[in-house]
Amino acid sequence: MLLIAGVILSLAMLAPPALAQGSQEPIVLRGMGSFHVGGRVVEISGKPIKEVVLGAGGVPAKFDPNGQYQVEAMYVQYFLPKERKGKYPLLMWHGGGLTGVTYETTPDGREGWLNMFVRNGWDVYNSDAVERGRSGFAPPDMWKSEPSFLTKANPFERFRIGQGAGSWNADPSKMKVLPGNLFPVEGYDNFVKQIVPRWIDTDDAIIAAYTALVDKVCPCVILFHSQAGGFGFKVAQARPDKIKALVAVEPAVAGDVAKAGALKDIPVLIMYGDYIPQDSRWPKMRQLGLDYAEALRAAGGKVDVVNLPERGITGNSHMLMMDKNNAVTADIIQKWLAEKGFVE
Amino acid sequence: MLLIAGVILSLAMLAPPALAQGSQEPIVLRGMGSFHVGGRVVEISGKPIKEVVLGAGGVPAKFDPNGQYQVEAMYVQYFLPKERKGKYPLLMWHGGGLTGVTYETTPDGREGWLNMFVRNGWDVYNSDAVERGRSGFAPPDMWKSEPSFLTKANPFERFRIGQGAGSWNADPSKMKVLPGNLFPVEGYDNFVKQIVPRWIDTDDAIIAAYTALVDKVCPCVILFHSQAGGFGFKVAQARPDKIKALVAVEPAVAGDVAKAGALKDIPVLIMYGDYIPQDSRWPKMRQLGLDYAEALRAAGGKVDVVNLPERGITGNSHMLMMDKNNAVTADIIQKWLAEKGFVE
Repeated sequence: MLLIAGVILSLAMLAPPALAQGSQEPIVLRGMGSFHVGGRVVEISGKPIKEVVLGAGGVPAKFDPNGQYQVEAMYVQYFLPKERKGKYPLLMWHGGGLTGVTYETTPDGREGWLNMFVRNGWDVYNSDAVERGRSGFAPPDMWKSEPSFLTKANPFERFRIGQGAGSWNADPSKMKVLPGNLFPVEGYDNFVKQIVPRWIDTDDAIIAAYTALVDKVCPCVILFHSQAGGFGFKVAQARPDKIKALVAVEPAVAGDVAKAGALKDIPVLIMYGDYIPQDSRWPKMRQLGLDYAEALRAAGGKVDVVNLPERGITGNSHMLMMDKNNAVTADIIQKWLAEKGFVE
Repeated sequence: MLLIAGVILSLAMLAPPALAQGSQEPIVLRGMGSFHVGGRVVEISGKPIKEVVLGAGGVPAKFDPNGQYQVEAMYVQYFLPKERKGKYPLLMWHGGGLTGVTYETTPDGREGWLNMFVRNGWDVYNSDAVERGRSGFAPPDMWKSEPSFLTKANPFERFRIGQGAGSWNADPSKMKVLPGNLFPVEGYDNFVKQIVPRWIDTDDAIIAAYTALVDKVCPCVILFHSQAGGFGFKVAQARPDKIKALVAVEPAVAGDVAKAGALKDIPVLIMYGDYIPQDSRWPKMRQLGLDYAEALRAAGGKVDVVNLPERGITGNSHMLMMDKNNAVTADIIQKWLAEKGFVE
């Protein structure tokens, strides 16, 4: 039985992606660049002026903390293939505690979904949510909470890489990896370097900036992961006319069930990896997504839910885009988008 | 006199870059991606466990702040042109309060130096210094200082865009721009969105990560700006065998004069923009750089200092790579690298 599962998995991993070119082919772009979008200006007043030296050996400068500040804008980097095949821009939104790096090179050095979808001919817009990465974060008192930091152990035990609480160990030989797991554990330390601090009360600012992005570059397809379930579904509910399709990769948060009708004309793909029944939190999180899918269907919407193990694709962690079979999962998404008519 | 200066400037701006291709040509890459490098693992203990909901509507998770943390790693994104003409990788290091976005699209939407040097055939490695952008920042108590935030007015008045203190105004019609300034003032609000918080006691961590990058991808050429003067010159002094050339763009900090001899075999280009004599801080900062250049020469080194106004190129702010004539300044750097034998 284990052997059979292994054979199925190996075949799935060996199957060449239908549309992605081999990684030896050059990437030909008609353009690439970045911009910031959204945000607001706030005023700080009544604070004392400081004199600081910015860098050892530098010349002292007066630092007056009072004045207007730009906060809550969002960084977006784009790659536009010369031979465009995706009918609409493809927006990639990462999960909590992470940045757009999620979709770049995998922690073990393979190509990520960003390159794969650019190779497939999509104009890809990859962003860092407000508060994270190149979006920066706001001065004290702007947000109510303090930033949270993740230990090295936390994602290992929470992202279905290891066998739950206590499975991580500083000694790699003592780590308890889930059997057959496809996360590139040899690159786990690299993955942890991608983690950035997170706040827990910034959802409204994040959604505002994502909405500004949609207003700027859509109509589009949005692909989103984990925490961004709440952002992807909610922004689509606010701007249904601008969203052509939604790809929800292990959404940890769902949309607003009461507003499900807004998405009735938008095809939705929801994808889940392996090991969910044995996890302490993921059965409930998946159920949130499945309940939302039912609400979308009840409102006349079309939702395809892919539980990868049901297709014989086992071993996927929460970080599907980094797992060893990320070309296989990218290909499932690509084919779904093609079936829905979004590939020329 | 003003008219003559205007004519010279216009000619300089109209002169086509010698090696950069027109921006309509596709960018052909043999690869692109990213990685994190360097950093260290620290232990936090004795803090209480919290239960938090990560995102509205999410499932509560236990947040134990105790454990091992990865801190002080650095994000690096790379673009590798198919037709490589630069003999060595070109590393781009940004200035204080900023990230690698410095070298991407300009605030008014033109191509930045990143694209220009990739088009010129350089393998470009663009990084976010430790503490900033996609490198993330460390938990409380790891660093002694608090993060500093820049007002919207601050860079306008300090980067030789406006006429010093008090020159910025929320009302664009009341801004006092330096006459003839080439910073894209119409994109100033976009530029401000690129600013990220900075710490003032992280130089050692930043230098450690840059050194790790040099150990990973060099021999190389390093191009660095403003605050990164301290990083570029110092890392080169620590790894002289791995550095083939240094391009210091308005370095605000110099290297260690006592160790200038380490750079005697490394060609150095130092470039300064306009308006320095009339600025409150830049005469002293430029003098620091000129004194260091003299120390390098006294130790047998070769340094070329380009004061752009002396070449008839007027109007440059501190953000040379964003100014309207950024193709002209990129071309000066490109030609210098070619003269030194680093272009094939």
